[in-house]
Amino acid sequence: MEIPFTKMHGLGNNYIYIDLFQYTLAEEILPLLAKSVSDIHTGVGADGLILIQPSERSEVGMRIFNKDGSEGNTCGNGLRCTAKYAYEQGYTSSERFNIETKANIVEAEVKSDGQVTINMGKPLLRRSEIPMMGHDDPEVVAEPFPINQGEWKVTAVSMGNPHAVFFVEAIEDAPVEQMGPLIEKDQRFPDSVNVEFVEVISPQELNFRVWERGSGITQACGTGACAAAVAAILNDHAELNDDITVHLLGGDLVIRWDVNGEVWMTGGAEVIAAGTYYFHQTQKVE
Amino acid sequence: MEIPFTKMHGLGNNYIYIDLFQYTLAEEILPLLAKSVSDIHTGVGADGLILIQPSERSEVGMRIFNKDGSEGNTCGNGLRCTAKYAYEQGYTSSERFNIETKANIVEAEVKSDGQVTINMGKPLLRRSEIPMMGHDDPEVVAEPFPINQGEWKVTAVSMGNPHAVFFVEAIEDAPVEQMGPLIEKDQRFPDSVNVEFVEVISPQELNFRVWERGSGITQACGTGACAAAVAAILNDHAELNDDITVHLLGGDLVIRWDVNGEVWMTGGAEVIAAGTYYFHQTQKVE
Repeated sequence: MEIPFTKMHGLGNNYIYIDLFQYTLAEEILPLLAKSVSDIHTGVGADGLILIQPSERSEVGMRIFNKDGSEGNTCGNGLRCTAKYAYEQGYTSSERFNIETKANIVEAEVKSDGQVTINMGKPLLRRSEIPMMGHDDPEVVAEPFPINQGEWKVTAVSMGNPHAVFFVEAIEDAPVEQMGPLIEKDQRFPDSVNVEFVEVISPQELNFRVWERGSGITQACGTGACAAAVAAILNDHAELNDDITVHLLGGDLVIRWDVNGEVWMTGGAEVIAAGTYYFHQTQKVE
Repeated sequence: MEIPFTKMHGLGNNYIYIDLFQYTLAEEILPLLAKSVSDIHTGVGADGLILIQPSERSEVGMRIFNKDGSEGNTCGNGLRCTAKYAYEQGYTSSERFNIETKANIVEAEVKSDGQVTINMGKPLLRRSEIPMMGHDDPEVVAEPFPINQGEWKVTAVSMGNPHAVFFVEAIEDAPVEQMGPLIEKDQRFPDSVNVEFVEVISPQELNFRVWERGSGITQACGTGACAAAVAAILNDHAELNDDITVHLLGGDLVIRWDVNGEVWMTGGAEVIAAGTYYFHQTQKVE
């Protein structure tokens, strides 16, 4: 089976994109196809598979399958790539349009410089929404967080997934590998948590390192960058409605928390390769 | 820069192939191109880059670049893929032909069932050729090899690179992860060594697991499979000139050590994908 594909990445987060405006895939092969095409040894190699497809409720629809074959809800880096692809293919007449995902409908804008802005929604700040244990304040801003005999202060933000943000003096000294796994599994976070270390360079510029829940150190975490900017504003290190550049290992994202409470993420989306994938439905997949 | 490519694999060992019968690449970009296209995050993702090119001394030439950008000598799995590609593109009129590598000129045959046979050359068996320390026998066959308070017997074979082969009763019990790294670095092997555990199912069938020097457990090691078959014959578990099927994690290889002392390896070569790679010479590569 010869399947046309495009491989794209946003800050190193890479997916195989299949255009279902042009091509048809049977529903039952999707999990195996996602596993197969994502396998570095016998497939193209990627973090997963994204389908770009017609939508009844938006200009464009997007479905995401992880490399284990399971279907995901959404992905900030994947949304930027989907937006850029759909715009360049002419599936939307305007540079501002909506993308329907399994989770919700998302506003996207493809800028003239090729960068893409995505509305990442409103952060959830109530303790019960993170979720995080504790009885004092309804929000968790610079709250003392004793761990490992250290003096830490945590700011907790949910962007649909939970984030624990810690400010550090210098990003090089952030104990990502030492503290990340401890905080991720700390019992104060009943759903476990993504752990971010953030250095404030200026009100418009943050350095950022992440320990992702279930994945460890990664090149980029879009929701984590959003949580970092929101936490910086909550701690008066940065300002509402301002463009805040976040430097991640995989590249830069610009985050803005606007006066309506929406968080906007702007970043790159790059086409790596395009061609034909020779899919063997009988092939062995690990 | 838009570069046409094919991704192929042999037993999961996967490379990006660029056809220099059809396309030209400047010598100075090759190391960066190899790193860039091999990167799973921002490139296609592969073990490295292989150039298929005209040769003055053979029907086909092949150059191999590792994913770190360094140039390698040769690769058994890569030779099978190169042979199949060249034959299918019509760069050779016969199904038997020669491929020139940086190391030597190699005989190849593409069979009617799509499998490919490569002449892997003659094994080196003298202790000094492995190389291995010790003063007794000139060859190392079932030689007592005390390590970690265990009772082991080693057979040592060089296929251009050194292999230490250990026979086990059941492949599931082979202590690859425990013993592999110890034996690899054992001072009796001054150049260190690839470590193979082999279960004899029958004189025509071996189970095989490998700890590769510098890489650890891998899906497949073509020279290791050759060394395993040679060691089985040296230990009277199998016979000269017989087809011996070796079951590796990544698939099967058929090895034959012929009466002239040449080792022939037969196995699959699969096209995964073909298309265009968008190479940015300025892109950041880890």
